Amino acid sequence: MKVVLAYSGGLDTSVILKWLQDKYNAEVVTFTADIGQGEEVEAAREKALKLGVKPENIFIEDLREEFVRDYVFPMFRANAIYEGEYLLGTSIARPLIAKRQIEIANQVGADAVAHGATGKGNDQVRFELGYYALRPDIKVIAPWREWDLNSREKLLAYAESHGIPIEKHGKKSPYSMDANLLHISYEGGILEDPWAEPEEDMWRWTNSPEKAPDKPEYIEIDFERGDAVAINGAKMTPAQILETLNEYGKKHGIGRIDIVENRFVGMKSRGCYETPGGTILLKAHRAIESITLDKGEAHLKDEIMPKYAELIYNGFWFAPERKALQKLIDETQRNASGTVRLKLYKGNVNVVGRKSPNSLFSPEFATFEEDSVYNQKDAAGFIKLNALRFIIEGYVRGKNK
Amino acid sequence: MKVVLAYSGGLDTSVILKWLQDKYNAEVVTFTADIGQGEEVEAAREKALKLGVKPENIFIEDLREEFVRDYVFPMFRANAIYEGEYLLGTSIARPLIAKRQIEIANQVGADAVAHGATGKGNDQVRFELGYYALRPDIKVIAPWREWDLNSREKLLAYAESHGIPIEKHGKKSPYSMDANLLHISYEGGILEDPWAEPEEDMWRWTNSPEKAPDKPEYIEIDFERGDAVAINGAKMTPAQILETLNEYGKKHGIGRIDIVENRFVGMKSRGCYETPGGTILLKAHRAIESITLDKGEAHLKDEIMPKYAELIYNGFWFAPERKALQKLIDETQRNASGTVRLKLYKGNVNVVGRKSPNSLFSPEFATFEEDSVYNQKDAAGFIKLNALRFIIEGYVRGKNK
Amino acid sequence: MKVVLAYSGGLDTSVILKWLQDKYNAEVVTFTADIGQGEEVEAAREKALKLGVKPENIFIEDLREEFVRDYVFPMFRANAIYEGEYLLGTSIARPLIAKRQIEIANQVGADAVAHGATGKGNDQVRFELGYYALRPDIKVIAPWREWDLNSREKLLAYAESHGIPIEKHGKKSPYSMDANLLHISYEGGILEDPWAEPEEDMWRWTNSPEKAPDKPEYIEIDFERGDAVAINGAKMTPAQILETLNEYGKKHGIGRIDIVENRFVGMKSRGCYETPGGTILLKAHRAIESITLDKGEAHLKDEIMPKYAELIYNGFWFAPERKALQKLIDETQRNASGTVRLKLYKGNVNVVGRKSPNSLFSPEFATFEEDSVYNQKDAAGFIKLNALRFIIEGYVRGKNK
Amino acid sequence: MKVVLAYSGGLDTSVILKWLQDKYNAEVVTFTADIGQGEEVEAAREKALKLGVKPENIFIEDLREEFVRDYVFPMFRANAIYEGEYLLGTSIARPLIAKRQIEIANQVGADAVAHGATGKGNDQVRFELGYYALRPDIKVIAPWREWDLNSREKLLAYAESHGIPIEKHGKKSPYSMDANLLHISYEGGILEDPWAEPEEDMWRWTNSPEKAPDKPEYIEIDFERGDAVAINGAKMTPAQILETLNEYGKKHGIGRIDIVENRFVGMKSRGCYETPGGTILLKAHRAIESITLDKGEAHLKDEIMPKYAELIYNGFWFAPERKALQKLIDETQRNASGTVRLKLYKGNVNVVGRKSPNSLFSPEFATFEEDSVYNQKDAAGFIKLNALRFIIEGYVRGKNK
Repeated sequence: MKVVLAYSGGLDTSVILKWLQDKYNAEVVTFTADIGQGEEVEAAREKALKLGVKPENIFIEDLREEFVRDYVFPMFRANAIYEGEYLLGTSIARPLIAKRQIEIANQVGADAVAHGATGKGNDQVRFELGYYALRPDIKVIAPWREWDLNSREKLLAYAESHGIPIEKHGKKSPYSMDANLLHISYEGGILEDPWAEPEEDMWRWTNSPEKAPDKPEYIEIDFERGDAVAINGAKMTPAQILETLNEYGKKHGIGRIDIVENRFVGMKSRGCYETPGGTILLKAHRAIESITLDKGEAHLKDEIMPKYAELIYNGFWFAPERKALQKLIDETQRNASGTVRLKLYKGNVNVVGRKSPNSLFSPEFATFEEDSVYNQKDAAGFIKLNALRFIIEGYVRGKNK
Repeated sequence: MKVVLAYSGGLDTSVILKWLQDKYNAEVVTFTADIGQGEEVEAAREKALKLGVKPENIFIEDLREEFVRDYVFPMFRANAIYEGEYLLGTSIARPLIAKRQIEIANQVGADAVAHGATGKGNDQVRFELGYYALRPDIKVIAPWREWDLNSREKLLAYAESHGIPIEKHGKKSPYSMDANLLHISYEGGILEDPWAEPEEDMWRWTNSPEKAPDKPEYIEIDFERGDAVAINGAKMTPAQILETLNEYGKKHGIGRIDIVENRFVGMKSRGCYETPGGTILLKAHRAIESITLDKGEAHLKDEIMPKYAELIYNGFWFAPERKALQKLIDETQRNASGTVRLKLYKGNVNVVGRKSPNSLFSPEFATFEEDSVYNQKDAAGFIKLNALRFIIEGYVRGKNK
Repeated sequence: MKVVLAYSGGLDTSVILKWLQDKYNAEVVTFTADIGQGEEVEAAREKALKLGVKPENIFIEDLREEFVRDYVFPMFRANAIYEGEYLLGTSIARPLIAKRQIEIANQVGADAVAHGATGKGNDQVRFELGYYALRPDIKVIAPWREWDLNSREKLLAYAESHGIPIEKHGKKSPYSMDANLLHISYEGGILEDPWAEPEEDMWRWTNSPEKAPDKPEYIEIDFERGDAVAINGAKMTPAQILETLNEYGKKHGIGRIDIVENRFVGMKSRGCYETPGGTILLKAHRAIESITLDKGEAHLKDEIMPKYAELIYNGFWFAPERKALQKLIDETQRNASGTVRLKLYKGNVNVVGRKSPNSLFSPEFATFEEDSVYNQKDAAGFIKLNALRFIIEGYVRGKNK
Repeated sequence: MKVVLAYSGGLDTSVILKWLQDKYNAEVVTFTADIGQGEEVEAAREKALKLGVKPENIFIEDLREEFVRDYVFPMFRANAIYEGEYLLGTSIARPLIAKRQIEIANQVGADAVAHGATGKGNDQVRFELGYYALRPDIKVIAPWREWDLNSREKLLAYAESHGIPIEKHGKKSPYSMDANLLHISYEGGILEDPWAEPEEDMWRWTNSPEKAPDKPEYIEIDFERGDAVAINGAKMTPAQILETLNEYGKKHGIGRIDIVENRFVGMKSRGCYETPGGTILLKAHRAIESITLDKGEAHLKDEIMPKYAELIYNGFWFAPERKALQKLIDETQRNASGTVRLKLYKGNVNVVGRKSPNSLFSPEFATFEEDSVYNQKDAAGFIKLNALRFIIEGYVRGKNK
């Protein structure tokens, strides 16, 4: 059997690599992607070689631009938020990994794929729905659901007895973490008590608002058709945009949340997230929409957003209904171009200005003064007919005095 | 004709009072409500008397408890936000005023009501839909749509020529404002340029985050069936809850927003809002829901929320569909009891803990370890059947390799 | 182990009964319900006794009234239709069976329940979601997913070798069928070719339209708060209502459909259904709503209906979100009282009249003539403000000539 | 002033023509379209000439193909039905008329448009929203809201005194009617009593089911990407498709409905409609979708359909949100190709077969037998995880025995 493994180079996926070789006698192909998690991906090559992977079976790729351009940005066009709080940082990265695994499997003639997600989480679903959607006959191996290495001790013992190097750099974090260009997440440890506040040193990416600069900073983001394309006037690629916004967000303590969420697999879980650049981007995107979108399409977007966000959270990125919703969303962005000005200060992102050549905001229509387009007397008829069903109901059901 | 006027005691509604007497030869009944706008309502009595209103025709009422209990709290059960940002502070107060005007009209035998909202805004709609829903044969007088006093100068001239006292306390604010226990709003002035940032002294209620204390403060809010009932363990009435949260919010610079919104009457308008207590309350309410609501009902609420919020924004509080949605929402709150712990700091409201006797969060189900209820192998079947439609589609449409 | 089995008395569940005794050494408790499937339920008693079930372990109940009152009628208040066609006849019966099984299990101290639904259908889900919702620690046995009796031949061989009587009344139907007071369903056989028309003799309940009477018949149905309460003036219980409407429907060839539907478990399946009384009832219910419901609540119902129907189809009757939706739906029915007149003729159900003391239909408001409530000039303002966003967009984006 | 009038050639619009000349001293441009209403449109030319319209100001066009191709077919892709019953036959024709009026106004340099819709109906809204969406500065004249000819007598008197020929062909229908290729509608007369059944001779287009042939007829419709393209194997244009289906529907008594609907302007009205071809087409379209659409996209379509239908009913065809929804809908139709077989008999349209090269129906996945793709044991995990939230809730809230 030939298996393409989503390989980080860390202990867990190294044990999986070995276990696949042993248990399935598999030829393992490793796939390691840089999606902005902030670790050196090339280090995975040496580790894979050491574990006996053939050089031609080691795939290491920089997917940061594709990640932001084809996954993060389309999602932000929808202002997607899961359960009112979560910006879907982990959810949106999984489909891309799954897609590349299948493409590599097709390329190298592999008949299986494997991942290191556990059996209680959402990520197993996100990976596997992606696999099946892109190649229905693929064999999926999810070691955490199969083996009995279900404790840290057993895992370490397996590593030791199979010659897998265990790095001993300081103490292991008590949290389970995941990171990419959009966010870093924390689960487990004391977070399992939803009443307990995480200690400050859990947060790895952002300054705390308390330690952020005492002086506000202003930035401007340019949008074209719903996507950010420049910061303070400097044109950038999608990944550069997000990296730059991350820098601003980290500096100013922006984008931390601490929530209890509902997993697709049925239980609640506590998660803490840092999404510095994404938090800024969402605010800015809503602001550019506020002056360039028609009310009808803006409200339609708000109504379908929870469903769209749930689809991404649950792993249905490649589902036809996600794609159909995307068509709707993208159509609404045709005029969402212009500039948003934001003030960043100690955890706060405030919109302070927005402008656009496509702006539908027109002070002469909104203000006190009479104008040629809007006759205030029209409002009487507008109200009367909106009220008509109440008036009729009142007459029929005897509400008069 | 006998008219019940929503009377603030200010210049505009005093002019209206006089104008109703002159133009309609009306016997005017004034209704002045304390809904937490922060002005002394008793002052309206003397003014009304001076303008010739009979003592028995002057109604001054403290509606703060009713406002929070029957309007604000039911709305917060829904986590209602209009267009992703606006907490509906003005919208939610209008139906209560309309209701009391009609009740007074019925009591005193009036055949008309009048209000001081302009002909381009949302408030005229909110007042009048309320009037018609509660008494279909009521005559509605909206002077701003009828008269030609369509500039500040004409208004002042009318006041002067009709003996209406014009208070000359410093310079007039360049903003149009509205306030109640939930919020204060600003429109007009330089806000008509959506690129212009309002100067700091526009904001009246909250400290700026920059001037807020340098030390975070923690508070705890207790909920019962979706409504806040105590702060830091002290039981309070609904209005006291909101007043207390307003104090915390004001101190810590919480709840300012600056948006461009879509009015019901069809144009966009720029508005700035301070909703200090409401901003804290919304965060806290979402947090208590996060551990006590079932996923299915939580997601259902998120899906119907935009419609619910739009109904309130548009003035349809008394519409049957708002009431039907409220039944749904209230049903979901039966277990939403418990305590939320929040950290307030320079504009930030962060949830740091939540607990409830009804909590559905159960760390043993969410974590790594095996448990009796959840068999990780079940996940394989769950994923496989969720993927089945993709798999079949793939087989049928030839996506295999 | 003590198991409560949903027992029909037929071959399949008799084999299951025996298999539970053999495989699990279980004490089997049989539960047989009359939900209007049109078979003599008492016959199940003797069969159970013969298979060694203790007399006190045999439960036979007439649930027809409960079925219609607490399941069918609440569902019809929502005008629930799955995928535009299916009236949910099978779906709505499963939760009731599941509920009674759990109640009996609690009563007799059983620790398990079993059903005869196969491993590819929706019914296994509907039964088991009901079980778990009502008693989370219940053990569920689904023999069709466990055993290897996966062909008719093996089943018959097992029956013969274990002394289970096989009734040899004519030839076995080629269709898999399910029936209750609301409908009868057909699957399998030539229906597996979606291009093939089923032969006329498949349909068991209704006359074909061709053989239905050549003369139309008129009936009147009275509703109270959304539920049918009388036919042609004769008050009836819920089950009597449905039985009577079934008679009318059968006579006039009403309620056959032939569809391909999407199962919850992920594949498409062809099904034919006869829902004679339900088809009449749905038409009549929509008609009484048409004159008694406010537009806002009627449209809200239409918008949430597909979700409500999907919940029932998927087996989520006891889910909190179904209950919350029901609160909304029931609230809208408070005025849905009155009488509907229908014409039945060869497959057609046509509404020809509707009346109600709560009617909101008022010809004086709808017709040409001027009236006191509706001023035609109001329409100009109504249209102008509804168009305002288009007008502004047109001005801003240069659509003028 | 130069006005483009939607001119039918009948009495009402002839009076309007004259009135525009007299009242506004307007140069009238007449626009008469054949959208399949079944009347000779060329007759309008002579009438217009007689009333003094210049030959170059008379526009008579055959819009039947455009009507079906660009309006009816896109709408049918959505399976649009208003309030569960109405196929939107009148609603869908108005935007096309409005669009051509504006185009002609631009071409001839007119500054106004006029229509003959009354001040209480939906059509005025549909026309005028179209006008404003396409040319914001257009002047709209709606004579029925302006003049005082508000009775048949006054209209006739005006006609007589202004030399407008009144055709005296038999007695005037007591109903207000509207027709196009999709349907004919009836309002007014005895229909204003919702309890009264219309007499048989009101219906103009279809045989009554009683008089329809005693023998069923089978037809086959081919679809490509959601649109019907052939009947019984014969390729046809969109208008030919609808005309041919109308013939079948008329012959077999298909497509009559009798409803009370909620108008956009706030009151209920009784309407009877004949939509013979459309009724067949809708059934067939749903059937081709049933085998070619993925469940997720099919359900998404069902969920957004009521909103889409309401937009069309209310006249928002040119609104951005309708266009965005259309993008979503059209995306789902990419595989909706194949053939549907239908049986037509005395008012009934029954689907009896459907096939497609893109069919997702696969009997091997749906049936009893074991297969390679679907492992029945997967269902256990699927159910268990779908039930997990109920199980946890049960444990936490003590539902065990």
